[in-house]
Amino acid sequence: MGKIRVAINGYGTIGRRVADAVTRQPDMELVGISKVRADYKTGFIGYHDYTLYGDSPQCVDQLAKGGFNPKGTLEDLLEQADIVVDCVPPKLAASNKPRYEAAGVKHLFQGGEKPEVAPFSFNALANFDAVIGAASARVVSCNTTGMTRVLYALHSAFGVEQARVVIARKATDPDDPLQGPVDGAVLDPYPAQVPAHHGHDVAEVIPGLHVFVMSARMPMTHAHFHSLIISLKNKEITRAQVMEVLLQTPRTLFVNSTTGVISTMNVFDIGRELGRSRGDIYEGTIWEDSVTVDEGDLYMFMAVHQEAIVIPETVDGIRALMGTSSKEDSMRVTDETMGVVAGRLLDVLSRKKIVLSF
Amino acid sequence: MGKIRVAINGYGTIGRRVADAVTRQPDMELVGISKVRADYKTGFIGYHDYTLYGDSPQCVDQLAKGGFNPKGTLEDLLEQADIVVDCVPPKLAASNKPRYEAAGVKHLFQGGEKPEVAPFSFNALANFDAVIGAASARVVSCNTTGMTRVLYALHSAFGVEQARVVIARKATDPDDPLQGPVDGAVLDPYPAQVPAHHGHDVAEVIPGLHVFVMSARMPMTHAHFHSLIISLKNKEITRAQVMEVLLQTPRTLFVNSTTGVISTMNVFDIGRELGRSRGDIYEGTIWEDSVTVDEGDLYMFMAVHQEAIVIPETVDGIRALMGTSSKEDSMRVTDETMGVVAGRLLDVLSRKKIVLSF
Amino acid sequence: MGKIRVAINGYGTIGRRVADAVTRQPDMELVGISKVRADYKTGFIGYHDYTLYGDSPQCVDQLAKGGFNPKGTLEDLLEQADIVVDCVPPKLAASNKPRYEAAGVKHLFQGGEKPEVAPFSFNALANFDAVIGAASARVVSCNTTGMTRVLYALHSAFGVEQARVVIARKATDPDDPLQGPVDGAVLDPYPAQVPAHHGHDVAEVIPGLHVFVMSARMPMTHAHFHSLIISLKNKEITRAQVMEVLLQTPRTLFVNSTTGVISTMNVFDIGRELGRSRGDIYEGTIWEDSVTVDEGDLYMFMAVHQEAIVIPETVDGIRALMGTSSKEDSMRVTDETMGVVAGRLLDVLSRKKIVLSF
Amino acid sequence: MGKIRVAINGYGTIGRRVADAVTRQPDMELVGISKVRADYKTGFIGYHDYTLYGDSPQCVDQLAKGGFNPKGTLEDLLEQADIVVDCVPPKLAASNKPRYEAAGVKHLFQGGEKPEVAPFSFNALANFDAVIGAASARVVSCNTTGMTRVLYALHSAFGVEQARVVIARKATDPDDPLQGPVDGAVLDPYPAQVPAHHGHDVAEVIPGLHVFVMSARMPMTHAHFHSLIISLKNKEITRAQVMEVLLQTPRTLFVNSTTGVISTMNVFDIGRELGRSRGDIYEGTIWEDSVTVDEGDLYMFMAVHQEAIVIPETVDGIRALMGTSSKEDSMRVTDETMGVVAGRLLDVLSRKKIVLSF
Repeated sequence: MGKIRVAINGYGTIGRRVADAVTRQPDMELVGISKVRADYKTGFIGYHDYTLYGDSPQCVDQLAKGGFNPKGTLEDLLEQADIVVDCVPPKLAASNKPRYEAAGVKHLFQGGEKPEVAPFSFNALANFDAVIGAASARVVSCNTTGMTRVLYALHSAFGVEQARVVIARKATDPDDPLQGPVDGAVLDPYPAQVPAHHGHDVAEVIPGLHVFVMSARMPMTHAHFHSLIISLKNKEITRAQVMEVLLQTPRTLFVNSTTGVISTMNVFDIGRELGRSRGDIYEGTIWEDSVTVDEGDLYMFMAVHQEAIVIPETVDGIRALMGTSSKEDSMRVTDETMGVVAGRLLDVLSRKKIVLSF
Repeated sequence: MGKIRVAINGYGTIGRRVADAVTRQPDMELVGISKVRADYKTGFIGYHDYTLYGDSPQCVDQLAKGGFNPKGTLEDLLEQADIVVDCVPPKLAASNKPRYEAAGVKHLFQGGEKPEVAPFSFNALANFDAVIGAASARVVSCNTTGMTRVLYALHSAFGVEQARVVIARKATDPDDPLQGPVDGAVLDPYPAQVPAHHGHDVAEVIPGLHVFVMSARMPMTHAHFHSLIISLKNKEITRAQVMEVLLQTPRTLFVNSTTGVISTMNVFDIGRELGRSRGDIYEGTIWEDSVTVDEGDLYMFMAVHQEAIVIPETVDGIRALMGTSSKEDSMRVTDETMGVVAGRLLDVLSRKKIVLSF
Repeated sequence: MGKIRVAINGYGTIGRRVADAVTRQPDMELVGISKVRADYKTGFIGYHDYTLYGDSPQCVDQLAKGGFNPKGTLEDLLEQADIVVDCVPPKLAASNKPRYEAAGVKHLFQGGEKPEVAPFSFNALANFDAVIGAASARVVSCNTTGMTRVLYALHSAFGVEQARVVIARKATDPDDPLQGPVDGAVLDPYPAQVPAHHGHDVAEVIPGLHVFVMSARMPMTHAHFHSLIISLKNKEITRAQVMEVLLQTPRTLFVNSTTGVISTMNVFDIGRELGRSRGDIYEGTIWEDSVTVDEGDLYMFMAVHQEAIVIPETVDGIRALMGTSSKEDSMRVTDETMGVVAGRLLDVLSRKKIVLSF
Repeated sequence: MGKIRVAINGYGTIGRRVADAVTRQPDMELVGISKVRADYKTGFIGYHDYTLYGDSPQCVDQLAKGGFNPKGTLEDLLEQADIVVDCVPPKLAASNKPRYEAAGVKHLFQGGEKPEVAPFSFNALANFDAVIGAASARVVSCNTTGMTRVLYALHSAFGVEQARVVIARKATDPDDPLQGPVDGAVLDPYPAQVPAHHGHDVAEVIPGLHVFVMSARMPMTHAHFHSLIISLKNKEITRAQVMEVLLQTPRTLFVNSTTGVISTMNVFDIGRELGRSRGDIYEGTIWEDSVTVDEGDLYMFMAVHQEAIVIPETVDGIRALMGTSSKEDSMRVTDETMGVVAGRLLDVLSRKKIVLSF
């Protein structure tokens, strides 16, 4: 059987990361990327020898005028593909769905879209099997992905009665100079919505789990910052038992503020020092010395790199929809090819060099 | 009986606000302010016709060289006073305590100090009576004061089983350009301490109340931002019942994001528009439309203006230590003279102009 | 002769400040304020006993639904007025001009509008007389006003050959949580425009003066920060001569970093400590110890409080259009009623209390 | 002849970048890195298979306690080396100088040190030959390096009469969460120093060039932002002539805001997309559409990535001190091994993939 032929629609924060991840997979081939505008980001498509398409004939013209060389339209691209990963800005994807259906290709959406865009919400660890062979799914958002990994592991091990998560959201991505705030916290969303939508999203991938989320945006760009409060069903569970489970949780990294990792700014630094593409941190990053168990309640701080954390799940989602791989095989290959790790940072560093740049 | 003669040691964020508040009290007289350094802030002491003293003979010299006219040393000032409010930078107050004791004046510390600095921690609403006539007390910190007001009201009305509070702290005050972070969240304190100290502080003023706090600093200057999760003893309590109590809680203001108050930046704006000294917000400021009751748990967002919120309690603390006033009388006079309000912002605005600048 | 009847269209950053300033003028009466939306800011119109109008019949309805009590439409308001100060968001004013003309009232625009909106650009110090009796004028923008004051003074005294000004702009106002950037400098405007428009604006009010401006936005809210490079015609001028002129320049304040004023954050602090409305700084604020003269070139740093600096000029602009006052009388009355000062901060503070809150 | 044996003292922002750069040079060998503290950054020394040393016997003990395996002290390291690159925090290097001299190794300091630390200030393009074979030199600072490249090129081509540069400095590096400011501009240095030191530094490497610098810190982490005002001797020079020279200037990159590069945040993004170590931008990055020539004066905006820009010059400085290479050969090898480019971004991207991660 041939490789999975993957198309990508959009080349922003997520699209370009998915492109690089797909090209590393032994069982996938990147057939092309569709774009709307001619800008500096478009220049990187050729730089990586990826094939450029325009969203429409007008876009093809505009890209050509901008000095680029698009090979055709999105429809031309979809003809070459088995599956398309939709990476357009939030709220635009729904209008693309009929085009994907008309082309008869499977389609994977991102978490900025509403759940209704696809019949399934997806997280590799939590519900890979439920999605196998489906025509369409939505990878849950960065915040939900971060939460889901640890909640799934804890729920499986001990039973989680309820979780409350307070999210200090990044204001914007590092390449977007237009969004604020500059000096304050902003309700997210506004007008106020308590609880925020993330709990509902977790329940889509871990049915029955009750998660209550409060969220506000802060003037920072590198990561979301989660304060997790997780009530375990068994009130006798100790911190040691919790750590044993968490240290085995896939795609979850542990740092310690006693070694100088006191901020999400240091987490960003770690991503860069690891030598990864763009300094990406695919793992939810937990401060081990913040992990506290008090009368059956688990408290901890976690950083979530909003640009990168969903990329491994997106790669797995492609395999799930195509039905070509088991959950375990997919997650293993994804993690090996992308250098995704688990466990304590200093342990990771003491092993051989596991991560590669693109 | 004459007025209470109040000395203030320090003229930073808190000291200058206490000075203005004391001069508005009909039963108090500001006898002088002690300062260490000659800087632009010192110029405002004369501007307000306050009397300047130097912390030591060397400081007196230095202030004189800086063009100011100190009347004597801290010891000279203490001779004129019944009570001193210690407003020096955190962690320095303990070394001043023997000087206050030697002078035979009562002393009121701020919440940046450790509880051990004084036999009592103080919050006007929660434990005024416990402190009456004591020689020394510590007004609890800005964050603890904000939490204590609402927790005391809810605990009195319904019984609070447990509270969890996640604090997104301001990075620094608006007049301090040296502290960061610039672009990230920082564990506060670091190395990690979960729970943070505030829960212990609340328990000092509301004995028996269990409050678990997680805290991190964010790149903002105008206010702390609290996400409150309060488990009520009675699981049948409704949102309407909660709001009825909260709207009567002293020194607590309600805003609504549907009217455009979507950020702590807008809360800062409200303080300025009210025409108060420095735009101060003495009230804990709660987003009414964030108030949610879910199975006996109350969730809400609150802003705490770190520069101002403890000023009313400091004024009350002076009266408590001096034993000259009941709790009710003290809080009433403080609120009237300083224009401290309670209830919904738009209701407050529709009443006659209640706040004055200094 | 009766008082000048002033209407204000808009109640944002500028409108509310103009309202307070107008009510302090002995020769003016504020007849009402027109607004579009019902939000928390609208509540302050009643709080100050100002009279509310709605921009259109639909706005009147919407304001009423929001719980407010508008007296009529903008057209009703204009009937009561001799002059209207247009304080709507930038780029909207042009569409209001025909309404003002139809009502036969004079109109004063703000500097966010293009020069073409009115036959005259206005700065009180530079060209008051040119505008006397005109039907319409535009007060130049905050940055241009700050530059114009010092350039006019220096040009009058010594002759300015050329000025270059690099503006580090504020990202947004303190009550706007939506604009960025969070962590970087942004070309302003973008796409790049070198020189920026301000030099042209200065030349509108000081004909023949050559000013070249480069401008970028920074993640800050309290003030613009100007680096001024001014080539004087006479290369023999000394720093002492320059300071003599600058210390006499109206509406210009001098601070010194050796007293701890090292940042625009301290300038903001000074505004608050002065006890002014909203902590406003009407004066261009120059670091005296940055003032350097090198071979006929003058270098210095200046802070410009973008929310407040044009308010005195707006008050003067009203008088200029109405033709009721000379330049000297108008500027004197404006400065006295608003507490606008000149000279060194510590000298200002050592005089009697000159500023009042609203 | 064998490879140059390079030791590095310090593994912070500069040290770790120099380490990676040295290991890419065909004529150099990294013999080890000396460190003071055991922290998360230390873990990356082993991760890269670099050899760890401790600054002192006590540091060796402390590193061992932290779980690391230092091979000896700085003195042991120096015994293995021909040259040491001093990358300790600013102002500490001077105290290390006697240790380097005692060991008889050449030493290269960074620009955070005062010029007096070494007999020569160094910039590869400007004065490589002057430093050949010397025992000690100081690579000029990031800001000075950025300025020097373009000023040297323009001065060589046209003659520069005078340059004025206004620097909006980054507040701190992305991995330092403690420094501010959060919301304002801060004089840099303070108390005010106009001109700042950089002009003096440029004159050290381009004798006779008059450069006047004004500098203030802004709340940003990714880059310094320069506004350059360069008076050319020949007033007839056109923009086209300037661009012709600048596009040939080594280590200088051109972006264009019309393609969406409107901020230093986008420049940071470009570094990440190029796939370089840590997203580093070794090139001074100029907005081509900001380049303006007006009556013999050249105006333009440039971003300077403070973490990375001096790394190529540091590599060249090693060769200059060792006397093993000509300027042209050294710069060529450095640029090829590190993927340093020149010219327009989109042209760079359209060539084959030239940059590599470590």
